[in-house]
Amino acid sequence: MNEVVEQASSGRRARGGGGAARRAERTAVRVEFAKYIERNIPNLEILNEEALAIIEANAETVLEEIGVNFVDNPAALARWREAGADVQGERVRLPKGLARKLCATAPSSFVQHARNPERNVTIGGKNLVLAPVYGPPFVRDLAGGRRYATIADFRNFVKLGQMSKWLHHSGGTVCEPTDVAVNKRHLDMLHAHMTLSDKPFMGSVTERSRCVDSIEMSKILFGEDFVDQNTVMTSLVNINSPLTFDPIMMDALEVYAAANQACIISPFIVGGAMAPVTVAGTLTQVLAEVLVGVAYSQLIRPGAPVIFGAFVTSIDMNSGAPTFGTPEAAQITLGAGQLARRLGLPYRSAGAFCGSKLPDAQAAYETANTLNIGLLSGVNFMLHACGWLEGGLVSSYEKYVMDADQLGVLHRLAAGVDMSANGQGMDALREVGPGGHFLGCDHTQANFKSAFWKTDLFDYKPFETWDEEGARDTSQLAARRVEKMLGEYQAPALDPGINEALAEYVAKKKAAVPDAFL
Amino acid sequence: MNEVVEQASSGRRARGGGGAARRAERTAVRVEFAKYIERNIPNLEILNEEALAIIEANAETVLEEIGVNFVDNPAALARWREAGADVQGERVRLPKGLARKLCATAPSSFVQHARNPERNVTIGGKNLVLAPVYGPPFVRDLAGGRRYATIADFRNFVKLGQMSKWLHHSGGTVCEPTDVAVNKRHLDMLHAHMTLSDKPFMGSVTERSRCVDSIEMSKILFGEDFVDQNTVMTSLVNINSPLTFDPIMMDALEVYAAANQACIISPFIVGGAMAPVTVAGTLTQVLAEVLVGVAYSQLIRPGAPVIFGAFVTSIDMNSGAPTFGTPEAAQITLGAGQLARRLGLPYRSAGAFCGSKLPDAQAAYETANTLNIGLLSGVNFMLHACGWLEGGLVSSYEKYVMDADQLGVLHRLAAGVDMSANGQGMDALREVGPGGHFLGCDHTQANFKSAFWKTDLFDYKPFETWDEEGARDTSQLAARRVEKMLGEYQAPALDPGINEALAEYVAKKKAAVPDAFL
Repeated sequence: MNEVVEQASSGRRARGGGGAARRAERTAVRVEFAKYIERNIPNLEILNEEALAIIEANAETVLEEIGVNFVDNPAALARWREAGADVQGERVRLPKGLARKLCATAPSSFVQHARNPERNVTIGGKNLVLAPVYGPPFVRDLAGGRRYATIADFRNFVKLGQMSKWLHHSGGTVCEPTDVAVNKRHLDMLHAHMTLSDKPFMGSVTERSRCVDSIEMSKILFGEDFVDQNTVMTSLVNINSPLTFDPIMMDALEVYAAANQACIISPFIVGGAMAPVTVAGTLTQVLAEVLVGVAYSQLIRPGAPVIFGAFVTSIDMNSGAPTFGTPEAAQITLGAGQLARRLGLPYRSAGAFCGSKLPDAQAAYETANTLNIGLLSGVNFMLHACGWLEGGLVSSYEKYVMDADQLGVLHRLAAGVDMSANGQGMDALREVGPGGHFLGCDHTQANFKSAFWKTDLFDYKPFETWDEEGARDTSQLAARRVEKMLGEYQAPALDPGINEALAEYVAKKKAAVPDAFL
Repeated sequence: MNEVVEQASSGRRARGGGGAARRAERTAVRVEFAKYIERNIPNLEILNEEALAIIEANAETVLEEIGVNFVDNPAALARWREAGADVQGERVRLPKGLARKLCATAPSSFVQHARNPERNVTIGGKNLVLAPVYGPPFVRDLAGGRRYATIADFRNFVKLGQMSKWLHHSGGTVCEPTDVAVNKRHLDMLHAHMTLSDKPFMGSVTERSRCVDSIEMSKILFGEDFVDQNTVMTSLVNINSPLTFDPIMMDALEVYAAANQACIISPFIVGGAMAPVTVAGTLTQVLAEVLVGVAYSQLIRPGAPVIFGAFVTSIDMNSGAPTFGTPEAAQITLGAGQLARRLGLPYRSAGAFCGSKLPDAQAAYETANTLNIGLLSGVNFMLHACGWLEGGLVSSYEKYVMDADQLGVLHRLAAGVDMSANGQGMDALREVGPGGHFLGCDHTQANFKSAFWKTDLFDYKPFETWDEEGARDTSQLAARRVEKMLGEYQAPALDPGINEALAEYVAKKKAAVPDAFL
């Protein structure tokens, strides 16, 4: 298994000669990182051909009969009219087949570049790229409890992402830095991703000028020509379900698609509230919405990279709260994956979803349900793959490292079964025979280091040892791991000129306008 | 969804007339129960045809070249010699094809009867029957911590099983009643299952006479003729991996198969210790062992019902402890399901496995990983489906109800997607349209009660409410649910004559021999 590569994060020290180098070697923290998942197992297909055809036909009917609204966006309405849609006021109705035809120019797979080329990710095909939680206004940790997130928290989460070996992507709004002005925080967030991590990241989507800032800062980091010719950001464009495309999200899609930067086009659905209460009804709506969103991206720029997104949760009919890890969400996630593959588009769904307020058993059941289904539904880009708590209101430090550890399970499961002669292990069976044991046999000795996925977090000690050490639960073990990872964090090397230019851009932009908190 | 049926557990009171009946109706505890799962989704097939053929050929090679040991069992050796095997000492080598040929008489599916015919289960095909944890010498609860299990605990767990709507089977050794003599505890255990539950149960396997007691007590409960003609017990026969069939387990298999009672024939494997360290190697050994065990059952009585079992865990190469919820175990579970289906046998694997000492996040991640994979691997009988803690050393009260709640997720996921006109929900999409919401629409009103699986345990309240109520974690919520379920428990009605005869059998058997604690 070559899925994990070690590298000394203090490379420059290690390159010194002689005794100093050896000392550095001994003290350097080794940071491991895994390549994105390349599945070697099949997806789970829960819908048969007939069901898929019904949903596709229904989605076309929705687009033709009901249509969608493009709100406060005359330019979009003009584009749709020109493309052949029936536009009445803000309502856009698409003749059958139009959206699907426009979607055909979207690539089935694309490379998102990182500033460290070893961290580039290919999104699409059989791959799965894992990115952390996105959006929570609160953070929680064992010592400090639940509180509003700050830019200091944001930087901590970016550092944890850089240090998490099974995480391929630095993400976007890993938490909302509520202590920075709303009109300026995107600058600090981008700056953190660009300097504290060398993994790929997401751009701002909250206002047109902030998308432009994201591209400008990327040009400083990657070089102007490089950004013109390559995709260096994947950003999150939510659809305001049902069937509504709001102007801020469309601003983001327009800016990014025009610049050949990737967008996830994602219905944001609480089933029963923003979509029908049934799975097939929700899938119909998801497909209709994504078809329009992707088609619109291709009206902006044919060939612009986009991802078929589906954020799905059910509603608790008693409290009205969203629920996670439920079977209906699983069915939608699996079905939407089939629809995305039939469209030939990369697929985003699932995540470390849970409704629990604490990183406890509820959180873990709900999360594990969703992570497993996410893997098996063919997801290509999994946002929220670690750190999500309390229905997305909270980024949890402890849950971040718990989830990030579990992402290793997905890597190994997806790798499939080794059927080589060594994998078949007939020598071991012959050597040991009836009644023996395999611990000391040659085959075990040759393979034991890489044979099993290994947690960096969970406890397998004998009961007595564990009890004497304080009978710690998983959240306490996780708190220690957070502390260790932040303590060992070292920033990836960055050209000092670029570093300075980024800081200068941020400072200049911040000074240009007064703070706004709305 | 008709998957859940309510019934008043105090049926006799409710049958009274007039005002008394209405009062009884209002106060009666309604106990829900779900039919076993009939899958309407595909299994996940991770091995291709070539890989399956390699493993099958390797298993035949193992049986021919290496063979298996039948320890202290001259009768078995004689049976094997007569069947055409090469017997040298205790070693039995099977020519290629012999085991598979003998397996052909085993049924692909069978009915295990319960004393309440509504609780009968059909084991095989696309069905999944869920049974609780088996075997732990300890119990744990939030109030009392970890302690040796007693017969009082045993009875509590049987009551919880009777009250758990997603559990189809009362199980067997739900914990070891360590306060009862080893040579008598099987009597108390069977008595508890037979009187406190009306779900199907398992027989004793720890000594030949105890298997006979299990059958005799079943004859009291079901009637002698009924037991002669029907399967009323499914019992657990472990193989002493690698490749060893010990005399106690073979005693059990011989007694039960001869009486047409079902056995799970199950390699008990800690990968790296009792089997090769690789997935394909372990699958080869599992298949070889099960082929021999099932073939032997058919030598005893052609047509005897048996289940292809696979208990698999990996080993933590640092501590030597077994690990759970790991990707290697998932791959073995999935692959063994494919092998079982190709043999045309019912399949037993998976469970609420975890290595954690507490019902915390580790426990839940590991458990949810295994439950999901168990569903998707085509398991027909899932032992340990709830209550398992600390690598099987502990039956946890809280985890029992947590896991049992999650089993509802499996039911709904397995039911597949409703593609009826109502399921398609086009009326809802037409009624609501862009920008609306679905909460009040006719389709939601007509469907909301059954639209979503609903937890009986987890918390979805707003943060503030939850905080004011004491900020309880899942284990605290579960402790309250345990208390509630035990408080509401009512024994299912049983013919007083049968009740008396069972008590008499137990008393007489207990009086006949002195206590033994070994």
